[in-house]
Amino acid sequence: MVWSGKIEVRTRGRGTREITEAVQGAVAESGIEQGLCTVFVHHTSASLIINENADPAVQRDLEAFLSRLVPEGDPIFTHTAEGPDDMPSHVKNVLTQTSLAIPIERGRCDLGTWQGIYLWEHRRAPHSRRVSITVLGS
Amino acid sequence: MVWSGKIEVRTRGRGTREITEAVQGAVAESGIEQGLCTVFVHHTSASLIINENADPAVQRDLEAFLSRLVPEGDPIFTHTAEGPDDMPSHVKNVLTQTSLAIPIERGRCDLGTWQGIYLWEHRRAPHSRRVSITVLGS
Amino acid sequence: MVWSGKIEVRTRGRGTREITEAVQGAVAESGIEQGLCTVFVHHTSASLIINENADPAVQRDLEAFLSRLVPEGDPIFTHTAEGPDDMPSHVKNVLTQTSLAIPIERGRCDLGTWQGIYLWEHRRAPHSRRVSITVLGS
Repeated sequence: MVWSGKIEVRTRGRGTREITEAVQGAVAESGIEQGLCTVFVHHTSASLIINENADPAVQRDLEAFLSRLVPEGDPIFTHTAEGPDDMPSHVKNVLTQTSLAIPIERGRCDLGTWQGIYLWEHRRAPHSRRVSITVLGS
Repeated sequence: MVWSGKIEVRTRGRGTREITEAVQGAVAESGIEQGLCTVFVHHTSASLIINENADPAVQRDLEAFLSRLVPEGDPIFTHTAEGPDDMPSHVKNVLTQTSLAIPIERGRCDLGTWQGIYLWEHRRAPHSRRVSITVLGS
Repeated sequence: MVWSGKIEVRTRGRGTREITEAVQGAVAESGIEQGLCTVFVHHTSASLIINENADPAVQRDLEAFLSRLVPEGDPIFTHTAEGPDDMPSHVKNVLTQTSLAIPIERGRCDLGTWQGIYLWEHRRAPHSRRVSITVLGS
């Protein structure tokens, strides 16, 4: 069995937004009990991660670390026509994930106790991000 | 066809442990000859990679590089309640992988000659890590 | 339904090569209309990414950034027998991807407007790289 659906994620500019509930809702809608859920973001300046969803400071620290590692205004970048935050966004994208694959057990993504699924916006401005969810199994 | 199973990986603190044999064993047990094997770690301070398994120095160098890139005691981190090695572990997790997808041919993960599958522990203390293996195919 | 195939990618040394057309061709050949396409590189010193394919400067900037982040000749590396560009290649591999998973809709990889699929060669010398494409769906 194959099921696929799309969600739209509105971001508030740089930082992560948790989408765990939306993904779990899609898996429930698919009716698939055992198998695999993949999540895919259709953009090159936003990405996906799975990380701790207990303490919000974790998400802030992830953002702070990655934005220091890949700073705006780095003279190494020549692709600057779309703004100083564009090329760093592409780098952050390749250092994190465009797709995630999560096992499904008993009709739900079998995440660890502290695991949440996040869309990570890398641009400064709020964006509307398109995310596909594909569920395979039985 | 869908098959899923779990393994537990005991780590010795920071560094990688090869799990290639355990994953190949799971694929053999699944009876699936052609398809896809995904591996998923249910934690946010350990991750998964595929890398060279010929010279053990490669794994040591990976650990040395990543631990220098994401050092303990970095003043940028505010999530410090769980110890100085906790937040660096979350960063290392997002810079590597929570899940892997490997093609299956003739009943085995079709890895390259030098490719091994590793669980990467990022905490200082030994842990028991839960890993799921999902096999899809025919 | 499961379909699998292989492509060989000839690289020109360090840098990315777009393989979007080859992957779309494999999906077309599979005859699968809805499901998941995974791409896997059978090497530990080349990797896969999805990133912007509009302006070639993006790919050059990605290469420049990653090669500065993981430089040759770093004294932290002990695995140097295969040349100064070998261990940095392994690090770059784990910081990017060995496999990608892309949703299939209407018989094609459902990529975003600016998304291209790239093989990233990390060695200085040209190589022939083996890539597997696995398609699951109906």
